[in-house]
Amino acid sequence: MNRHHRHHRIPVTVVGLGSMGSALAEAFIEAGHPTTVWNRTSSKAAPLVARGAVAAGMVDEAVAASGLVVACLTTYESTIEALEPAAAALKGRALVTLNSGSPAGARQMAAWARGHGARYLAGAVKNVPSAVGADDTLLYYSGERGVFEEFAPTLRVLGGDTVHLGADADLAALYEMAVGGTLLPALVGFFQGAAALQARGLTAASMVPFTVKWFEMINSILPVFAEEIDRGDYSKPASSVNVFLAGAAADEELGREANLDTRWHEPFHDLLRRAAEAGHGEHSIAALTEVLKKPGHPGQSA
Amino acid sequence: MNRHHRHHRIPVTVVGLGSMGSALAEAFIEAGHPTTVWNRTSSKAAPLVARGAVAAGMVDEAVAASGLVVACLTTYESTIEALEPAAAALKGRALVTLNSGSPAGARQMAAWARGHGARYLAGAVKNVPSAVGADDTLLYYSGERGVFEEFAPTLRVLGGDTVHLGADADLAALYEMAVGGTLLPALVGFFQGAAALQARGLTAASMVPFTVKWFEMINSILPVFAEEIDRGDYSKPASSVNVFLAGAAADEELGREANLDTRWHEPFHDLLRRAAEAGHGEHSIAALTEVLKKPGHPGQSA
Repeated sequence: MNRHHRHHRIPVTVVGLGSMGSALAEAFIEAGHPTTVWNRTSSKAAPLVARGAVAAGMVDEAVAASGLVVACLTTYESTIEALEPAAAALKGRALVTLNSGSPAGARQMAAWARGHGARYLAGAVKNVPSAVGADDTLLYYSGERGVFEEFAPTLRVLGGDTVHLGADADLAALYEMAVGGTLLPALVGFFQGAAALQARGLTAASMVPFTVKWFEMINSILPVFAEEIDRGDYSKPASSVNVFLAGAAADEELGREANLDTRWHEPFHDLLRRAAEAGHGEHSIAALTEVLKKPGHPGQSA
Repeated sequence: MNRHHRHHRIPVTVVGLGSMGSALAEAFIEAGHPTTVWNRTSSKAAPLVARGAVAAGMVDEAVAASGLVVACLTTYESTIEALEPAAAALKGRALVTLNSGSPAGARQMAAWARGHGARYLAGAVKNVPSAVGADDTLLYYSGERGVFEEFAPTLRVLGGDTVHLGADADLAALYEMAVGGTLLPALVGFFQGAAALQARGLTAASMVPFTVKWFEMINSILPVFAEEIDRGDYSKPASSVNVFLAGAAADEELGREANLDTRWHEPFHDLLRRAAEAGHGEHSIAALTEVLKKPGHPGQSA
C-alpha cells in the first residue's frame, strides 16, 4: 500500500467482493486509491480492511463514498438487486459493472443505471483474479465515452490493456460472449484428452506443455480464419471441412479404446456434414461459420 | 540451399508431398540433406526438384535412396497403401510417419512396418506447414528409442522442439489426439463468436486480439486443471460447474438475438447437468473429466 500516493488518487468504491471483486479492490488499494468496499456477506471485506480499505455498512453508504463505483457481481440481475437500495445515491456518479452476461442483460443494466442518473460503463475482465493489475491484462468497456476517458487512468490500475469498444453499452457483453464461447468447448476437449491419457496410465500434466503449444498454434491461424469469414471467401483452405470429416472416425475409435463418452462430438460431426452438404467440403473449416447462421442472419446475405 | 554442407548430411527420402510433406522436404533440402521425394501425383515434386531435390519415378526407388524415409500422407491406411510397392525396400531402413490417426491405426502401421523389417518411429507435427523448421516447433515421436536417438539430429531440422514420448509406437498418436481434441470445439466457439459479431455489423477480425489473449489465459490455467484431474480432487474450484451452468442461459439469449444455431451447446449443458447431479456442482469445472469417463474406465477407480 502506497500511503504517500493516497491523496493524489480519486476515491473508488467496489461493490461485490467475490474472488474477482476482491482482486479489483486490492489493486485499487495497492495503487493508493481511497477504497470503500461493500459485500452482502460483510466478512468478505475484512482482508481488504486490513490492507487499508474502508468497509461500508450499507450499500448506499458505499456508493456515496466515491465518484467511481465498480460493481463486480455474478450477473446483471444480481447487480441491480444489490444496488437497488443505493439507487438514489447513484445520481451523477460513474458506475462501472464487471460481470458476465448477455448483451440484452447489459442493455437492461444500462437503462436501469441511466434511469437513476448514473453515468454508466459496462466492462468485462477477460482473465482470472490473479491477473488483475498486470500490464498486459485485458479489460474492455463500452458505453459513454466521456466516462471512459475521465476514468481510464484509474481503470488502468486493474489491467494495462484497457480498451473502449464503443458507445453502445452492450458491446462489452457482446465481445465477452463472442470471445468467451471458446472456453467450455476447449476445456471439454482438454478434459477428454486427459481422460484418454489416464486410461493409459499417463497423467494430464504430461499433455499440458503440448496443449499450450497447440493453443499458440491456434492463435497463429486465427487471423487467417477471421479474414476468410469477413470476406465470406472460404475457397483457399489451409484445412478443409473434408479433412476434419475424415478425422471423425479416429475420434470415435479412440473413444472406444479409452472408454470415453464421446456423445458430445455428434453436433460437431453434424456441423461438418451440413457444411459438406452445403458445398463447403473442400472449403476452409471456417465455412462452419455459415452453417452456424440461421436463416435471416444479417451476415448471410453477404 | 547450402550445397557446401550437403555431403555432411545423411540422405533423406520424403514420401507424400502435400503442403506438410512439401514443407518437410524443403526443410531437409534447406539444411543440406540430399533429399529424394516421391508423390503419387508427380507434379507436386517439381518445386522441390527446382530447389535441389531428386524426384524418384517409383516409390520403391524413393525408399531405396535413403536410410531415413519420412512418410507424410493423410492417414495410416493411405501410408500403407502408398508404401506397399516399396515394402521389400524398407528392410533395415528407418521409417518415420507423420500423419494423423488413432493409436490403433499407429499400432497397425507399426506391425506392418516391422513385418517388412523397417525400424519404425511414429510421429506427429503439432503445427502448420509454415512452422516447419522453426526452433520452437514441436514434433513428437514414439517407437524404437534407438531409431530416435540415431536420427534425432536430422529430425530436429523439422522443428527444434523434438521429443521422444516412449517406446510404444502408438503414444504419438495418443498424444496427438488427446491434445488435438480441443481444435474443432475451440474453432466452432470462435466461428460462433464471429457470426455473433457479424449479426451486429462487426468484423471477425475485431475479436482476434481478444481471443488470442483469451487462449493465453486458458493456457495459464491448464496446469491447475491438470493437477486437479491427476489428484482426482476437484474440491477447490477456481471456476465451478455451477458457474458454467449459470452462464448457459446467457448463451442461448445471445444465440436468439444473433440468429445463431446453438444446438451444438446442448451436449455441453448436458455434461454440466450430469456433473452437478453427480455432486460436482460446487466442484471445479475440471470435474467434467469424470463425467466423460464411461463405466470401466481405469481412471474411475481412483
